Amino acid sequence: MTSFHFEVSSSQKNLHDHVLKVFRVLIADLVQQYNGGHPGGAMGMAAIGVALWKYVMKYAPNDPDYFNRDRFVLSNGHTCLFQYAFQHLVGYKHMDIEQLKSYHSNRLDSYCPGHPENEFPGIEVTTGALGQGISNAVGLAIATKNLQATYNKPDFPVVSNHVFCMVGDACLQEGVALESISLAGHLGLSNLTVTYDNNQITCDGSVSITNTENINEKMRACNWEVIEIMDGSNDIAAIVEALEYSKSSDKPTFINIHTRIGIDTTIEGDAAAHGAAFGQAEVDRLHKAYGFNPEERIHIPQDVYDFFGDLQAKGDEHKRDWNLLVERYSAAYPELAQEFLSRVRGELPDNWKAAIPQTFPELDTPSRASSGLVINPLTAAFKNFLVGTADLTPSVHMAYKGRVDFQNPDRDAQGDFLGRYIHYGIREHSMAAIANGIAAYNEGTFIPVTSSFLMFYLYAAPAVRYGALSQLQVIHVGTHDSIGIGEDGPTHQPISLPILFRSMPNMNFMRPCDSVETAGAWEVAVASRKNPSIISLSRHKLKQYPRFSRRELVAKGAYHFNKVDNEVLNIIGVGSEMQFAVEAAQILNNKGIATSVISFPSYYLFEKQPKEYKRLLLQRGKIPTVVIEAYAPNGWERYATAGVNMKTFGKSLPGPDTYKYFGFDSKVIVEKIEKYLDTWGEDENVRHEFVEL
Amino acid sequence: MTSFHFEVSSSQKNLHDHVLKVFRVLIADLVQQYNGGHPGGAMGMAAIGVALWKYVMKYAPNDPDYFNRDRFVLSNGHTCLFQYAFQHLVGYKHMDIEQLKSYHSNRLDSYCPGHPENEFPGIEVTTGALGQGISNAVGLAIATKNLQATYNKPDFPVVSNHVFCMVGDACLQEGVALESISLAGHLGLSNLTVTYDNNQITCDGSVSITNTENINEKMRACNWEVIEIMDGSNDIAAIVEALEYSKSSDKPTFINIHTRIGIDTTIEGDAAAHGAAFGQAEVDRLHKAYGFNPEERIHIPQDVYDFFGDLQAKGDEHKRDWNLLVERYSAAYPELAQEFLSRVRGELPDNWKAAIPQTFPELDTPSRASSGLVINPLTAAFKNFLVGTADLTPSVHMAYKGRVDFQNPDRDAQGDFLGRYIHYGIREHSMAAIANGIAAYNEGTFIPVTSSFLMFYLYAAPAVRYGALSQLQVIHVGTHDSIGIGEDGPTHQPISLPILFRSMPNMNFMRPCDSVETAGAWEVAVASRKNPSIISLSRHKLKQYPRFSRRELVAKGAYHFNKVDNEVLNIIGVGSEMQFAVEAAQILNNKGIATSVISFPSYYLFEKQPKEYKRLLLQRGKIPTVVIEAYAPNGWERYATAGVNMKTFGKSLPGPDTYKYFGFDSKVIVEKIEKYLDTWGEDENVRHEFVEL
Repeated sequence: MTSFHFEVSSSQKNLHDHVLKVFRVLIADLVQQYNGGHPGGAMGMAAIGVALWKYVMKYAPNDPDYFNRDRFVLSNGHTCLFQYAFQHLVGYKHMDIEQLKSYHSNRLDSYCPGHPENEFPGIEVTTGALGQGISNAVGLAIATKNLQATYNKPDFPVVSNHVFCMVGDACLQEGVALESISLAGHLGLSNLTVTYDNNQITCDGSVSITNTENINEKMRACNWEVIEIMDGSNDIAAIVEALEYSKSSDKPTFINIHTRIGIDTTIEGDAAAHGAAFGQAEVDRLHKAYGFNPEERIHIPQDVYDFFGDLQAKGDEHKRDWNLLVERYSAAYPELAQEFLSRVRGELPDNWKAAIPQTFPELDTPSRASSGLVINPLTAAFKNFLVGTADLTPSVHMAYKGRVDFQNPDRDAQGDFLGRYIHYGIREHSMAAIANGIAAYNEGTFIPVTSSFLMFYLYAAPAVRYGALSQLQVIHVGTHDSIGIGEDGPTHQPISLPILFRSMPNMNFMRPCDSVETAGAWEVAVASRKNPSIISLSRHKLKQYPRFSRRELVAKGAYHFNKVDNEVLNIIGVGSEMQFAVEAAQILNNKGIATSVISFPSYYLFEKQPKEYKRLLLQRGKIPTVVIEAYAPNGWERYATAGVNMKTFGKSLPGPDTYKYFGFDSKVIVEKIEKYLDTWGEDENVRHEFVEL
Repeated sequence: MTSFHFEVSSSQKNLHDHVLKVFRVLIADLVQQYNGGHPGGAMGMAAIGVALWKYVMKYAPNDPDYFNRDRFVLSNGHTCLFQYAFQHLVGYKHMDIEQLKSYHSNRLDSYCPGHPENEFPGIEVTTGALGQGISNAVGLAIATKNLQATYNKPDFPVVSNHVFCMVGDACLQEGVALESISLAGHLGLSNLTVTYDNNQITCDGSVSITNTENINEKMRACNWEVIEIMDGSNDIAAIVEALEYSKSSDKPTFINIHTRIGIDTTIEGDAAAHGAAFGQAEVDRLHKAYGFNPEERIHIPQDVYDFFGDLQAKGDEHKRDWNLLVERYSAAYPELAQEFLSRVRGELPDNWKAAIPQTFPELDTPSRASSGLVINPLTAAFKNFLVGTADLTPSVHMAYKGRVDFQNPDRDAQGDFLGRYIHYGIREHSMAAIANGIAAYNEGTFIPVTSSFLMFYLYAAPAVRYGALSQLQVIHVGTHDSIGIGEDGPTHQPISLPILFRSMPNMNFMRPCDSVETAGAWEVAVASRKNPSIISLSRHKLKQYPRFSRRELVAKGAYHFNKVDNEVLNIIGVGSEMQFAVEAAQILNNKGIATSVISFPSYYLFEKQPKEYKRLLLQRGKIPTVVIEAYAPNGWERYATAGVNMKTFGKSLPGPDTYKYFGFDSKVIVEKIEKYLDTWGEDENVRHEFVEL
């Protein structure tokens, strides 16, 4: 592991030590300022930061979004001051000293939130909940590999960025991280370097009270290169050597860097150094111990600025070189370059909608199969799509014709990094977090699509939420979305899951009822560049409603599916329960009870409609509206006055029997509705309540 | 590893082979019968089953709940026929041949759902979503260790059960399992044996397309004993030896058993053998290949029944021996035995409520601190409570005085298996799944309590859901439950999470507003023996309302907090937002707008109240009701007509500033309400809509 040697003169060593001291005191000061934040980790990690930002990483402070930049992910996001401070030191324009001081302030336009947020310059992904960042980093590395395999040509490495990720002791305990580590090792993502801030301290104290595994051996067993550095809070040279070496490994690299939390404070190595200010007296003491003036708080001497003074120019040069390279590439490979640059700009391919069939078979079709009819040609045609599944290829209908598996070509003869079909393994949470990382590589360059049974998106939910919070276009496909799956039973039947996503800000949960609506849902999802979507689909065959269902109206969230004149009742049908809505309405209409049917695929889209549209459709206060959906009723109270819904968990029975068992039977529903209409007429109270039928 | 030798004569070997063949054909027949289910895994695992049920496990078919039985967990729950078939063969009364045939049938009283469900005899925990079972098994092993340390005496091993858990390739990829494996290794749970059905096949095909790690090395790095068995589909003797050896190891044991999915069918070793019937022709072929009559379907020859014929009597004997042991124990240690037997019966300790303070300080108090005041004395006093945290001891106020950490005394001088404070590490999902296992050890014997920030219960949500589905008493304590946490920012501020739990069947999510209500919430949670609870608590200080808040009324879910005569408006206050409700109501009342305040800690409890109670409280259709809560509004539409809620994710600002930024400011709220009251009066439409203020 000595392929790269980083020689440090003694004067340089002294300068390094000085820089580290200034950095640590700066962190202590910043946290002391408003008496809050996370100082200890950032201080202990200073030498890693110097190695990364001064010596190893390629980036452009003057253009944080420079396409071919190395990606840096701070998975231990609570140490965010670490990143903010280095952004300031190396000359990111937005991060002036006043901004840096805004950490934990009430400044509304602060770039320094308590955890890094990707809406701000130079932040690749939002982190905070532990284990997300390292999974995102795996996604960034996958995106990089795929772009490289797709666009790089001999002598034209138009994509050559590396991915660096910092993790702490905690990230390595989280299941989502362990899943991602396993997959990254399998794929041999040699462009990924994880620096482990091994300070052996978490909130509860020593890591040894809860984790005594041999992490190096564990990482090796997962096919990672492992390098260990003992004096990681000081030994910048060793860290630089390890980082440089990692770039040439044929595996992902794990650099186990022993550091000291709250280094040089009186609580060094103690959990108390983790998440609180040290107290002014202790901060003053540290100033003095380092030979600094305690009166000079949040003060960066000019020699430290000078030390980092070359990085703006260096960044400009990287960018210039890359622009020149791309120019030459455009001349040599004009067509490919055009496509590449379109992806760099994050454009949707022209005419993508043309790839979707205009019509669909009218035979009963499971909506997961409808989904395949829509997305498979799209995926086949456009390289933007990186499709994957958590080991449910036979079930989710994502396996497009002519697909190549995304695999390391040196290890798997069947696959290639060119491949755009990812076998995520039985790792739902990691799948969604990796997909976030793929989407975050560069806005619009990729549209990652994940797939599993809808129920298992509860495993993935924290990452799905990060996608919504981070405004990432990721499309999640959840099949087997109701009790209609039958025999798998209550463990697999979602009841209260959909409302989690329906009530999540910036998340579009869509539940189409047939092939036409499924096409509409996909069209919305692909066109939605700033939010994730979930498309919820059936396992079992669904009736098709060519006369009723309207592809273009899915975008409205809800619309008249079958409108009758002077209706006295609305029935809302959704997804695989639409058949009960249509049948019940038919029976009621035949009985002379004028009943309209509303299809309601998406709360998110409906809430964006004008008030008038909503009122005209729902007629609240005028007529009753009954929703039929085999989930918990909660959330429907806004749109319906009564519901045929689930009040318990499901049951293992054949699908049709499960529906029947829980009262999803058109005749039974009609009886309930008729009784409800009676009470609606008789009892003023009922007209103001949501009634569970 | 040859401490135990299992000698098999050649005639016994022949009998074994016969039994295995009968078992495999039985599984193939059962799946063929209704043309659905999971045959391949169960067939491949037959030899493991014989080793377990015939030779190694101690249990009593005539009394599935016999207290000191070895616990068996089928983590790869889709292979449930494996367990059902062995239950039948060894003589569990409920599992007659007709019941066994009910797998995938429409029989409503079937004991054979598509995944094992703990409501049925002999099923310890409900499994299905992968990775849960092995985590539950870790919980069962922890429960066992704690009971042993608490009650066993020299010569009186009243608790001596072992825990066996079967996992497949998939479980070992799931993050929750990897978390649990790491913790089990750390704790040195020597009473846990995991048998790995290593058939290298998942739905997508060979495991090698997604996982090429060295599992043995990985497990060793996690402090597990590892044994490998190559011919695991046939070599019963080797499996018995490994299982027996594992009982004497001082570590948890991982037996890596190579098996063949769909063994002896034409699709042996293929993913197609995983989740579908083989087709009648292939099943017939297998019959013949084994020398059986294909006409005799679902047929178990008498010699196979005879082979397992000793197990009922053996089980009766185990039970008799244990009863005698407990009798002698009761004589030798009468007081301890009394306590032990009370726990065996799953009783709540007498006078547990007396341990909770009657009054609380009236100073502003964070509700997490209130919670500590309530639960700490209870935990200290009663051994039933096994309290733990996902590395947030300083934050969650669960660390009761005099606590002992649950640690392996051979490895950690500070702790002991007697200890009842579990450091789960930063493993939220595993924590909740392990807590389920602890609760499942025996109904009522333990009350496991977990704790973390509320937001991180999204990581734990799949396991929390399993607790609700399985009717397990687990209490989850989620602190830092609102945007009021401030600087940690949107990553840590829950918005749509609570409605997931509020709409979950059999789940009581409670959000108390002050110390008195927190005591009420704990009283409900401790008394709820058949459902999990989540107690949602604030990080920041909350006003106390000794004049308004009613401990005993928490059980009603919602109640009049401050009732005025002839109110024209209700305001619903919840948790840490109660202050805005009370203040706004005060301002409005001062302005002559008669406003009552309702406290609403729990949907779950409120929904259990009679219609009259609900109507009297809410007065729907008569007066408007405004809910004030810093979560997504969804779900409140049932109770309120308008809401001051969150429409986006949160923001990193100091807590009070965050509230203000999002409009949680009593004066601003009053202005909004006044406007709303105007439109309520003017616009009929508004009276029938939920209005986001």
